[in-house]
Amino acid sequence: MPERLVVIGGDAAGLSVATNARRSRPPEDLEIVVFERGDWISFSACGEPYFVAGIVDPVESLLALSEGEAAERSIEVRRRCEVIAIDTRAQTVTVRDHLAAREELVGYDFLMYATGASARQIPLEGAHLRGVFHMHTLDDAIAARAAVEGGVEHAVIVGGGYVGIEMAEAFHQRGIHTTIVSAEDVLLAGTFDEPFALRLMEQVRGLGIDVVAGEGVSCLRGVDGRVRAVGCDGDALPADIVIVAAGTVPNVELARNAGLRIGESGAVWVDDHQRTSVPNVYAGGDCAESIHRLSGRPVNIHLGTYANRQGRIAGLNIGGGNAAFPGVLGTAIAKVMDIELSRTGLTEAEARDLGHDVAVVEFEANTAAGYWPESRRMHMRAIADRKTGRILGAQIFGGRGAAKRIDAMAMAIWNDMTAHDLVNADLSYAPPFSGVWDPVLHAARLLQVELTR
Amino acid sequence: MPERLVVIGGDAAGLSVATNARRSRPPEDLEIVVFERGDWISFSACGEPYFVAGIVDPVESLLALSEGEAAERSIEVRRRCEVIAIDTRAQTVTVRDHLAAREELVGYDFLMYATGASARQIPLEGAHLRGVFHMHTLDDAIAARAAVEGGVEHAVIVGGGYVGIEMAEAFHQRGIHTTIVSAEDVLLAGTFDEPFALRLMEQVRGLGIDVVAGEGVSCLRGVDGRVRAVGCDGDALPADIVIVAAGTVPNVELARNAGLRIGESGAVWVDDHQRTSVPNVYAGGDCAESIHRLSGRPVNIHLGTYANRQGRIAGLNIGGGNAAFPGVLGTAIAKVMDIELSRTGLTEAEARDLGHDVAVVEFEANTAAGYWPESRRMHMRAIADRKTGRILGAQIFGGRGAAKRIDAMAMAIWNDMTAHDLVNADLSYAPPFSGVWDPVLHAARLLQVELTR
Repeated sequence: MPERLVVIGGDAAGLSVATNARRSRPPEDLEIVVFERGDWISFSACGEPYFVAGIVDPVESLLALSEGEAAERSIEVRRRCEVIAIDTRAQTVTVRDHLAAREELVGYDFLMYATGASARQIPLEGAHLRGVFHMHTLDDAIAARAAVEGGVEHAVIVGGGYVGIEMAEAFHQRGIHTTIVSAEDVLLAGTFDEPFALRLMEQVRGLGIDVVAGEGVSCLRGVDGRVRAVGCDGDALPADIVIVAAGTVPNVELARNAGLRIGESGAVWVDDHQRTSVPNVYAGGDCAESIHRLSGRPVNIHLGTYANRQGRIAGLNIGGGNAAFPGVLGTAIAKVMDIELSRTGLTEAEARDLGHDVAVVEFEANTAAGYWPESRRMHMRAIADRKTGRILGAQIFGGRGAAKRIDAMAMAIWNDMTAHDLVNADLSYAPPFSGVWDPVLHAARLLQVELTR
Repeated sequence: MPERLVVIGGDAAGLSVATNARRSRPPEDLEIVVFERGDWISFSACGEPYFVAGIVDPVESLLALSEGEAAERSIEVRRRCEVIAIDTRAQTVTVRDHLAAREELVGYDFLMYATGASARQIPLEGAHLRGVFHMHTLDDAIAARAAVEGGVEHAVIVGGGYVGIEMAEAFHQRGIHTTIVSAEDVLLAGTFDEPFALRLMEQVRGLGIDVVAGEGVSCLRGVDGRVRAVGCDGDALPADIVIVAAGTVPNVELARNAGLRIGESGAVWVDDHQRTSVPNVYAGGDCAESIHRLSGRPVNIHLGTYANRQGRIAGLNIGGGNAAFPGVLGTAIAKVMDIELSRTGLTEAEARDLGHDVAVVEFEANTAAGYWPESRRMHMRAIADRKTGRILGAQIFGGRGAAKRIDAMAMAIWNDMTAHDLVNADLSYAPPFSGVWDPVLHAARLLQVELTR
């Protein structure tokens, strides 16, 4: 009799655990079944704005792994099957099969909890008008694109996070008048320090995307059941389509009901092997927490990269391995038209909250040699600890070629490098790619000076 | 009475030492004089191909620091002044002033030897025909551009190194029929492993640039003192312009004559503070050697980045500091039309020569998510040590966005990371920038598998 791995959730973490467990355990040794409550498995949520923009087609190109490919690896995928209860003592899950309209009890030897996250719901009158979308699932993206192609003049995005700015790009590219309304004073509040985020916001406005900052939205106005405006008083914004992008929250109810420990970040607690507090139950992805390498504290950051890696770690361990997840830095990257942006590590504000005495530098540089015709301006901010000299964080925005430089900075932080260590690191240089001092190294030079003040 | 710093050579290392020493020692404490035998100071040799291509204009845009800017920092620059002898006991240099046509003796308290490198001369009949250029100084570039703009149909580049391929790009972009002739079997022999370099060579041919590999050139044929062909027998290649790019050699004669120790790499020996074997004499840049971090052995690699950093280290130390140069990895990057290429660390061949039992992976990946319209194919090769799992080297070529990824790999190698360490490193991901497993991380995954074989 083979053992059985039951996976709850058929997205990045769920399919990663399945494929990685399969690598070391053949079907006669381990049966693998994935329950997905939705219609789609293994889709790139990060790609949805580009599908709405019409840049990516068809929608299936957003799928990383098809059901057929899963089947080839003897991974059974059951769509429209929702796990509604877990009995960790009996080692069973109760599955509601929405297609067959019945429930069944399925036993497991290993369980992977990979339920992901959902769009955060905010109190919003008129949230259920037609033309209002919470971007999260692929179905949301398909519906939003259909709405756009039905003809839209004014788009309003409620929320100024990554999804907000990427959706703004999608609409702007289609020639739709686009406004981002953010309750925060800046775009990407919290992930970028405010002075830096302010400069970034001005650049986004310079693209022709309107940004209304520091304004909460509590009411949408409709006509004939269809959204027509954001705001219900005098200064309402016209809107034929509204995207509510108020962040995402981990799906933990099922875990909480089953008695899995919920961590202080609000997501499922796991150890570095992706084991939950309950034997034989693993978790990973948006629903699980990670340890931030700089603070040592649990965080819950929703990124496809973490879901893939954590799923892989759980799968390797279920497969008999001994793999540990080393934590995260919160590295992120995005673009809005020709503005690239990225960040890693701690912001200045976060570093101060953690008690660091910090040195902070901010400067402008070029993405290539100053004389290179395609050189673009870029802005960079870097933070180091005054006591140790260690680099704690970095933020970038600028033209093409700017943002991926965050990887070198992430590697410096990952390896506990000081500004002094980094300044002589052997990064590549040729005029089409950077100045002779790459902006990453220039940041280290400036931090060195700042640290001696 | 102030002390005096004499700098021999007014390029990257020479001006870096001057500006960095000045930062901590004002003119009343330290007089600084830079002797440059040529007409130009502080120019970007790396930018010359782009000047010849006509992409960069005017030639002055290639200057990093003007004589006026040097003067503002009380750094005296004397052009056309050649140091022809060093007396390390008397602490004097003999300077031949080519403008004033006289010689003088100048005393120093600190001496910086920053004479750089020269184009390697190969035995070549007809090397002095008009239309034949050894690319190295800015004057070479100015003359080559003038020749090109005088009308050229066929260009031949002798040598398939970085300068060779960049000059090939310059001619090709101007619509000139361009051929690279290399004595080696591949382009960039030695810096890329041969199987990888072969694939790269095919891509370069695919651009419409001819490559004749494995053929030495010993004779150029001219008519009326002007070059007309490369080769003097039956299968000569027509050529109106010939670039001899057979590498560069460090300028060490003056140092050798002065009794400075020459290291086993053939360049001036220095310690990690850029001190030569003689008291108060420093060296840096192309004329000085560096320690390769992976082999621990001295190497002499001619890169502007090293010249700038070593000059800076010497300047900080002359300024009273205590700075050490931590060695190099040989990270390099270049482009030929829309092919980017880069490398860092050891090649497989170098690693084997050093006695490593190696794991090697080579794969194709995308520069962005597979569904991203501007995603381009890239090829990557990575090398790890089987015993320790440490990553030793990486090579990349591919479309736009491919090559700068070498920086993340360089940082991994710099920090002694194993494939196992690297696989979970927190690099950035969004569809326009990479797949969810960045090619750097994918290399680590494949190496992990390979290491267990």
